[in-house]
Amino acid sequence: MTARLMNGKAVARTVRDEVAADVSTLVASGRPAPGLATVLVGDDPASEVYVRNKRRQCVEAGMADLHRHLPADITQSALKSVLDELATDPAVSGILLQLPVPKHLDTAALLARIPASKDVDGLTVANAGLLARGRVGLVPCTPGGVMRLLDEYDVALSGADAVVVGRSELVGRPMAQLLLQRDATVTQCHSRTKDLVAVCRRADVIVVAAGVPGIIGGDAVMPGATVIDVGIHRTPDGLIGDVRFDEVKSVAGLLTPVPGGVGPMTIAMLLANTVAAARALDERSVGA
Amino acid sequence: MTARLMNGKAVARTVRDEVAADVSTLVASGRPAPGLATVLVGDDPASEVYVRNKRRQCVEAGMADLHRHLPADITQSALKSVLDELATDPAVSGILLQLPVPKHLDTAALLARIPASKDVDGLTVANAGLLARGRVGLVPCTPGGVMRLLDEYDVALSGADAVVVGRSELVGRPMAQLLLQRDATVTQCHSRTKDLVAVCRRADVIVVAAGVPGIIGGDAVMPGATVIDVGIHRTPDGLIGDVRFDEVKSVAGLLTPVPGGVGPMTIAMLLANTVAAARALDERSVGA
Repeated sequence: MTARLMNGKAVARTVRDEVAADVSTLVASGRPAPGLATVLVGDDPASEVYVRNKRRQCVEAGMADLHRHLPADITQSALKSVLDELATDPAVSGILLQLPVPKHLDTAALLARIPASKDVDGLTVANAGLLARGRVGLVPCTPGGVMRLLDEYDVALSGADAVVVGRSELVGRPMAQLLLQRDATVTQCHSRTKDLVAVCRRADVIVVAAGVPGIIGGDAVMPGATVIDVGIHRTPDGLIGDVRFDEVKSVAGLLTPVPGGVGPMTIAMLLANTVAAARALDERSVGA
Repeated sequence: MTARLMNGKAVARTVRDEVAADVSTLVASGRPAPGLATVLVGDDPASEVYVRNKRRQCVEAGMADLHRHLPADITQSALKSVLDELATDPAVSGILLQLPVPKHLDTAALLARIPASKDVDGLTVANAGLLARGRVGLVPCTPGGVMRLLDEYDVALSGADAVVVGRSELVGRPMAQLLLQRDATVTQCHSRTKDLVAVCRRADVIVVAAGVPGIIGGDAVMPGATVIDVGIHRTPDGLIGDVRFDEVKSVAGLLTPVPGGVGPMTIAMLLANTVAAARALDERSVGA
């Protein structure tokens, strides 16, 4: 068996097209275009590249780019003031604080200034709480993107045995919650798991977000299973994931490549969250 | 093999004694006694019994009983005002809104008025978010009590295969989070799980909170496993749990009885949360 590859680039394009159509509808109805405020502190080159891509795709979807670039030595209180201003600015639908911020700043306290309704990265404790309680909130972009990929390829989740490898706050944990909401029987594995291969081999769906290059091989995959690789690692031979691609490709039924699988979905889901936040804000102001 | 029974009554007594000692220490240092505000709306007889027990144990531990009994026809806004007053009252360390409230009231909106720092039932979205993010908050009493029982009986959790049967917001979901924090490999099962017996039989630790009388029998338990029964059901033959006690007793290594297992732990953990909330409040006011 050779796995069918899940084309994240194509699905991300579909999501971006949907977002652009939603933005057009909003604007046609006389509402302002949704605005994304990306907040970049300092001059880390990798962060600059990430933020530039987010801003570009935001503009391509017809949304307003409300970028703020702040000096690396900004004080906690000055940065808080910027976030507070964005929080109350009606032109700002979504706020994204690009992480990591410089070490002298308190990330958790800064994230706490972002209202849950504008938290398009799904990073706040408030949105984590809503997710844990099975309520509607803004979902972190990477796990949200994985769910969209699974749906696009009609992967059955209700009653399926799903395994999430990794328990990070921003991917592994919310990923498990999202699979649970869709009625999968979810097992969360991590570095202390005794027999990772045995646990994974029982799964219909495996999402690997361990941050360990090639941790999952063909021996850990049930024939025909769906395998989603969230990992991305730069090596002398190019980008690789947490999955040993060639091995797993010959066992799995569906598999995401790296690159071109989960990666492209993340920014697309950020855009989808931003337009969703704008719509919700709009409904509240109409209701008020 | 015959399972050793886990004595919830005795462990709850230990917890209550610890709380009483903590309260004495606080008072001896010149601080006011912690105060628990139980809020009872209407005259449901079962709720009255629950609240009476909580108040009694609160007083026995040396804490102040700040009970509020409100009429069944109270308006949402009047009840909100009561909660807001308790939220700012420095004599109130913990607030417990006894659920369910009458149907004309919006439970989620009411719970949102309780500050996370006084949410001794661990019911708020804010505390669910802290738990989901692996941070320190006030933990719902029943899952907190299960963790204490496991620790009291030295059940190894790191790397253990743990299964939680049930995914309620107040027991199943936080239970899985707490086991994960202790490095167990956690599988969450529910009504859509395909083969519950097979999943449970792989587990070193099973926590059953399905709300279905006798759903787990001896065939679902690995010899020597630890089985915690959160269920409690009134039948013509007396109280029974979610576990078929006689069957499981002959297979498991450790087992909670019903009654006398998890049940007594719940109020004990409420008291422990209240003194923890008082201490945290105290530290913040000293720090300010």
